[in-house]
This record gives sequence, C-alpha cells and structure tokens, in this order.
Amino acid sequence: MKVEVFVPAHITGFFQIIEDSNPLKMGSRGAGVVINKGVRTKVKFSRSDKQRVIVDGVNDFITWKVLEILNESFELPSLKVYHELEVPIGCGFGVSGACALGTSLGISRLLELPLTVNGAASIAHRAEVELGTGLGDVIAELNGGICLRLREGAPGHGITDRIIHDPLYVVCKVFGELDTATVIKDPKSRDMINFIGSGMLKRLVSNPTPENFMGLSYEFAEKTKLLTRNVKEHFEIIEEEVIGASMAMLGDTIFALSKEPDTSLDNPIIAKIDSKGARFIQ
Amino acid sequence: MKVEVFVPAHITGFFQIIEDSNPLKMGSRGAGVVINKGVRTKVKFSRSDKQRVIVDGVNDFITWKVLEILNESFELPSLKVYHELEVPIGCGFGVSGACALGTSLGISRLLELPLTVNGAASIAHRAEVELGTGLGDVIAELNGGICLRLREGAPGHGITDRIIHDPLYVVCKVFGELDTATVIKDPKSRDMINFIGSGMLKRLVSNPTPENFMGLSYEFAEKTKLLTRNVKEHFEIIEEEVIGASMAMLGDTIFALSKEPDTSLDNPIIAKIDSKGARFIQ
Repeated sequence: MKVEVFVPAHITGFFQIIEDSNPLKMGSRGAGVVINKGVRTKVKFSRSDKQRVIVDGVNDFITWKVLEILNESFELPSLKVYHELEVPIGCGFGVSGACALGTSLGISRLLELPLTVNGAASIAHRAEVELGTGLGDVIAELNGGICLRLREGAPGHGITDRIIHDPLYVVCKVFGELDTATVIKDPKSRDMINFIGSGMLKRLVSNPTPENFMGLSYEFAEKTKLLTRNVKEHFEIIEEEVIGASMAMLGDTIFALSKEPDTSLDNPIIAKIDSKGARFIQ
Repeated sequence: MKVEVFVPAHITGFFQIIEDSNPLKMGSRGAGVVINKGVRTKVKFSRSDKQRVIVDGVNDFITWKVLEILNESFELPSLKVYHELEVPIGCGFGVSGACALGTSLGISRLLELPLTVNGAASIAHRAEVELGTGLGDVIAELNGGICLRLREGAPGHGITDRIIHDPLYVVCKVFGELDTATVIKDPKSRDMINFIGSGMLKRLVSNPTPENFMGLSYEFAEKTKLLTRNVKEHFEIIEEEVIGASMAMLGDTIFALSKEPDTSLDNPIIAKIDSKGARFIQ
C-alpha cells in the first residue's frame, strides 16, 4: 500500500500579510502562478518502529511538523514519507508548502483518516504558519492557475480566484536562496510589504490579465526593495522577450511568463502553468 | 480564433436550497460527484450578423441567458457557441450548468473580457438561478471531485470542499427526464428537500467517505420521496456490487460509485470521478 501525491510549485508575485491568532485564519493575500513542476510525495507504511521522513536525503522540518499536528488528533502508525523535489528549496517555489500538503493529503488517504481535502490542507497551512515558512502557498497549490488569494487563510476559510489566460510557459532562473521566515518575521519588512501589497489585488481584479499580474509583481519587488541585483540585471535582459518578469517571493529567483519556452536565460527551469492543482497520482 | 472548454458533468446526491434575493448568494448546499464526461463548448467569431447558438441542433435557453447577461456589461460581437454533450440533458447531470459555464469561460477567453474565473462562473451561476435550472452545479463543476458545497452561491461566495478517495468509477443509467425547475420551484418539494437535506452535510463532513456520501444520498432520495420506481428497482439489483448507489438529483437516473466499471446495469454510462474541474482544451 502506497499513496503518491503531486503538488505543483507556487511562485508568489506580490502579497500582503494578514495577522490572526488562529493559524487557519492567518495568511497572505496576493497573487502568484502555479507551475507543472513541484513535489512528488510518496507515503507508505514502515516496518520499523520509527517514523521516517526522507526528503531527497535531507531532514525536513515541515514534514515533521505535519506529522506532529496529525499526531495530536490521530494515533499514526509507523510511516515512510518520501519527497522528490522537481524545483529547488528556499528559492521562492513554495516547496515547504508543497511538502506539507503532499504529506497531509498522502497520509489522509493512506490511513483513511476522517479528513476532507480542506481538512488535510488546513493541517499543511497551519504547519507553514507556525514555522513561518509560508503564508499562502498551500491554498494556491491546491487550486492551481494564476491564483489570486482574495482572502487569507487555510482552504475552507481563504478564498481564491484565477486569471483566464492562453497556455503560457513559466521560465525561471535561480541565483540563490532567501529565508522566507527571516523576511516575514521582520517588522520593518512586514510593514513595507503590507503597505505596497495592499491595493494591488484590486488593481489586478479590475484588469485580470497575465501582463498586469507580472507588471504588478515587478512593481511590488521594486517598491518593497526586495528586488535583488541578480533579478534586476536579468529582468533587463529578458524584459522584451516575455510577457513580463519579476522576482519570486521569496527567493533570489527571476520568473517570467512567456508564449515561448526560449529566453536568453542560461540553464533556466522551464515549466507551464498548472491549472489542476494538487492531485493524487492514481 | 477558437476557444474550447471542457466542463465535467455533476450529479447531485443530496441538497438543501438557500434563498437569497441576490442570485450570486442564492444556491444550494449539498454534495455530489463530478465525472469525466460532460459538455465540450466551442466558441468562435461568427461572420454573420446574428449571434448563433448551436446545441447539438437544439436551441438552448441557458446559453442565450448567459449571452444576455454578458451583453449587459460588454458589447458582444457576433459569435458562434457550439456545445457537444457527452451526457443527456434533463437527467440530473447538471448539463445546463455545464453549458452555461462553458459559454461564459469560453467567451471570456476568446474576447479577453476583464473577468476572472470566478467572475465568468458567477455569470453562469446567475443564469442558472434566474432560469431555475440549477442551484449548485456551476461551483461543483468548476472544482471537481466528490464535491461538498458547504456554503451556497456562485464561486467567490460559495465554499466547497472535497472527499479524499481512491480512484473510482461512476456508473449511471438513465431512465428518463425530470424537470429541475418544476421541483425546485414547488413550495412543498422545497420544504421537504430542505427538511431532509439540512444536517446531512455535517454528517458527511464528520465521516467523509464515498460510502457515507452514497448512503446519505440514498437516504435523501427515499425520505424526500423523490426516489423513482426505476431507480429503486435498479438500486436493489446493483446494491451489492457497488460502493453505493442513489438517484441523480434531479433526473430519473441511477448513479453508483464503484471500484469496477462492470455492473448488472444494461447500457450504462461509465465514467470516472473528475478531480480537475472545468478546463480549457489547449
């Protein structure tokens, strides 16, 4: 018995942090794009007495956090959880959210826990909020598309929407990591992010196009001063070739929406927009 | 230039009607299953001066209603809208909702209207509510899965959830039509539906399994006295072979969830659960 889940990666373009003492109601509003590369999570029963989490050989806090939360309500048997990452961690692809969601959905199905999709996803969202690793990736990764997070929070509380678009490529290049928790826990960064981010959703809803999403994202990266030198330099190189480009929030990563897979970026990650969201493989 | 949309059919198992003077907030709560057969809608520009709607050769009120609502806000050019039905109309498959949603999504993309997915789907929901042809199919068809409609209304207002399940077949047999509008507009039927339907969602959320969904659905069909003789007779024949069976709300149609595609039903419609929801074909 084995369950496999694919959770697509999510790149945030702009956002705003909404505080709440309840982790299921805390989160971010904003917009991002979900891509057809992400995290494949396999969950199976383990013969050993120890719960085991393997993440491409790296120990993984978020997955343990999900197991800890599940253990509060259910007596979990010994399990193996294995994540295969198709995009790098710490670079703005929402990998922690994808690992968390893959784990909670996978275990729910394997053990036939009395959880709905929203229930399992809420555990993943709570794990993210409590560790400070993400605020809106889980709900976006569950839904897919160029995803607007209109109301913050876990699935069931948060409200999402999507932009209608022609098929598009998402072309990315990673320069390095940024620590999401450090940025979103720093009061000065938060104030700046919330000041710039608020109001952007309304501007996107009134003109819901991929071009406008990318334009607002770049404006957000510039005005919040989160824009890195690497992203700025490469933005100037590819600006003319693509529909729009900006910085992945939060990673030293440039991402662009484009009609064609080819750009001037060296060694890019090339994906398509994923409109389906998290799903079981068989 | 042509846009093609696939909208999966939705079979309601049980429901409850929630009134509101705002059609976007009116709708139904309940649960149903979305299947991988449905309606394929093609939208393209027409050379003729007349707007043209073709529905497998039959004139279609719901599609005209969507065009009428779109015309309130946008000056539509001459268009052709063509629906290809993979399931019968009037038999509890939510075909009117699928035609409405395919039309609004397709036209939004073809004309690059300033509408998000929720915005386009809201127009389809409003068309359904105003014609009385459906109350919750649009949001379910947009989301897919064994779909719980926890809060009524159009996408953006309504809240949905899904049951986590192994891959399953949906086996159906159609005996005849029922007129949804007649049933949901009759005060006596409404009272009975609401009396029986309220409380069922809570029972499903606390034990969210395909078995429980089907059990509650049959209980609903029996207690509301909507259960037809055809469905009752065939229920007794296939009960042992499947996970559960009940009557499609609203059609003289039996539907069953099953691990295998084969049952004792003659000339069945055999589908799988569709977890992706409405989508553009390229």
